[in-house]
Amino acid sequence: MTDQVLSIADLTSRVKAAFIASRVAPDIADCVADALIRAECDGKSGHGLSRIGSYAAQARSGKVDGFARYTVTHPKLATMAVDVAGGFAYPALAAVNRDLPALARTHGLAMAGLHHSHHCGVAGHHVEAAADQGMIALLFANTPSAMAPWGGRTALLGTNPIAFAAPVANAAPIVIDLATSSVARGGIMKAAANDQPIPEGWALDADGKPTTDATAALKGTMTPMAEAKGAALALMIEILAAALTGANFAYEASSFLDAEGAPPHAGQLMIMIDAEAFSPQTTTRIAAMAGLINDDGARLPGAGRIAKRQQVERNGLTVSQQILDTLDRLIATPV
Amino acid sequence: MTDQVLSIADLTSRVKAAFIASRVAPDIADCVADALIRAECDGKSGHGLSRIGSYAAQARSGKVDGFARYTVTHPKLATMAVDVAGGFAYPALAAVNRDLPALARTHGLAMAGLHHSHHCGVAGHHVEAAADQGMIALLFANTPSAMAPWGGRTALLGTNPIAFAAPVANAAPIVIDLATSSVARGGIMKAAANDQPIPEGWALDADGKPTTDATAALKGTMTPMAEAKGAALALMIEILAAALTGANFAYEASSFLDAEGAPPHAGQLMIMIDAEAFSPQTTTRIAAMAGLINDDGARLPGAGRIAKRQQVERNGLTVSQQILDTLDRLIATPV
Repeated sequence: MTDQVLSIADLTSRVKAAFIASRVAPDIADCVADALIRAECDGKSGHGLSRIGSYAAQARSGKVDGFARYTVTHPKLATMAVDVAGGFAYPALAAVNRDLPALARTHGLAMAGLHHSHHCGVAGHHVEAAADQGMIALLFANTPSAMAPWGGRTALLGTNPIAFAAPVANAAPIVIDLATSSVARGGIMKAAANDQPIPEGWALDADGKPTTDATAALKGTMTPMAEAKGAALALMIEILAAALTGANFAYEASSFLDAEGAPPHAGQLMIMIDAEAFSPQTTTRIAAMAGLINDDGARLPGAGRIAKRQQVERNGLTVSQQILDTLDRLIATPV
Repeated sequence: MTDQVLSIADLTSRVKAAFIASRVAPDIADCVADALIRAECDGKSGHGLSRIGSYAAQARSGKVDGFARYTVTHPKLATMAVDVAGGFAYPALAAVNRDLPALARTHGLAMAGLHHSHHCGVAGHHVEAAADQGMIALLFANTPSAMAPWGGRTALLGTNPIAFAAPVANAAPIVIDLATSSVARGGIMKAAANDQPIPEGWALDADGKPTTDATAALKGTMTPMAEAKGAALALMIEILAAALTGANFAYEASSFLDAEGAPPHAGQLMIMIDAEAFSPQTTTRIAAMAGLINDDGARLPGAGRIAKRQQVERNGLTVSQQILDTLDRLIATPV
């Protein structure tokens, strides 16, 4: 058995079946399968099929509750407070994309705070879905501890991503999605698994010293992007995604990757702004700037995703033997 | 005549007189003088007294209208649209800090978009004033062209700062204020004025090649912080501060520094979030995290400012002969 090319429909049904066999409600299994496959289609494999095994293990151990139903309250007029209840974040984020745009149109902007939440996957997907509805959207998400505040050595901050999307007249939205660490943690995990060194500048060891040893790096901290500036932005995201929403801080959150311990109960904050809040010209103006950027030979952030998706729709997705084995194993051992 | 130590009161009256002599309304002169002196007190001299000469020249040439009165409308329930009318930004930003918190308390969050605006000075001061009122605040400001989109060579983006502040229970707010360029443009201007080289990595020449020649750098582009990530954030800020608000993009905005040409008509977007929108625990939670950061030997962003201010209050501010000469010249030549 080797790598196989599967259609999206075939792959979706297998991933869904694997989650249902792992104590996940069918509709939630559907939503989570879609999110992981969409990530894989965009080439974001760190948030794609590679997560199936750890998500399923967490559902089986109860670290994530595959039957949890989020609840929504509106503590202020332009807000949604979403209690994800220890379940997967994707159904709650889909609800935010369904209900928050109307609030933002009425008030000019609106926000949703998620707590008792879990891994949000590709942050850019959630803001892109908002931009498709005429929203300028910002998503701040915290993650388990990985980075030290600038000048410190203890990993008090997550690699906390910020994602942003804006609609562009007569074109796909601009989508920005970046971690506030120098590099994604997945790169270091991969190097450690393959016993390979990492480049200088990616990480510090447990004593706060620069290291090229991937295993030492995993015991230490990731470096922030842009030094003090990235650490400051990660701190800002802890405040927005956790202190404000009532979620766990990075240093209180358990791993998204293993089935050990209490639920991570991480947080996300989505702010949506009606792109036409101040003027009907916004998306046309963005298109004008986007045109100049393209003319200058630069690429707009997120511009590659459309071509990738079309290619996958035409050709299907190549799935590794390892992933196929995981799916078979999960489906064969329902709990 | 050499450098002099002046009390804040004495300095304020001189700076105010210099602006009044330069065709600025007395109340606006007061507001602008306060902003520049506050910047100087915090050690942010690039936004401090060094700006007096160029601000006054712009008021004298009409590039900034020293008698302009901003107007406010509320196109959506939780918004303020502020037309700065080609005047100084400071009075309009003071109005935002006076009126936006009430909107944010009602709706959970609110935003103010400023257009036909000018240099906002120390972005951190405006969000700090919001945090002093219980707001978590974000300020996005665009500036005249200085940076290329990632992969491009034309300076289509400003060095666009982002500022953030959050209230901390029983302590001063956390304040983050950073440009999305690697370094502030002022550093390059200073090196060029002194005919000195700049470190590698700060800037590219007009051909898009790395340079250590400060004069060539001023004709080229600044490098973004964190490479592609910083360029993406600068683009995000163009969209928020200009496309959304109806302000000029960086590449349409004239310089904040000279008296030539049309007004810059730059933009700013302030988002204020009621820190208690979701829970009354937010500021206590932030204080808990701040305590851990301090215990780890790291410093909170903006932590140095309080001591600096107290020192200035005790000892007065040292003002250079050059600034004193500028003040004397302006006061002696009213228009």
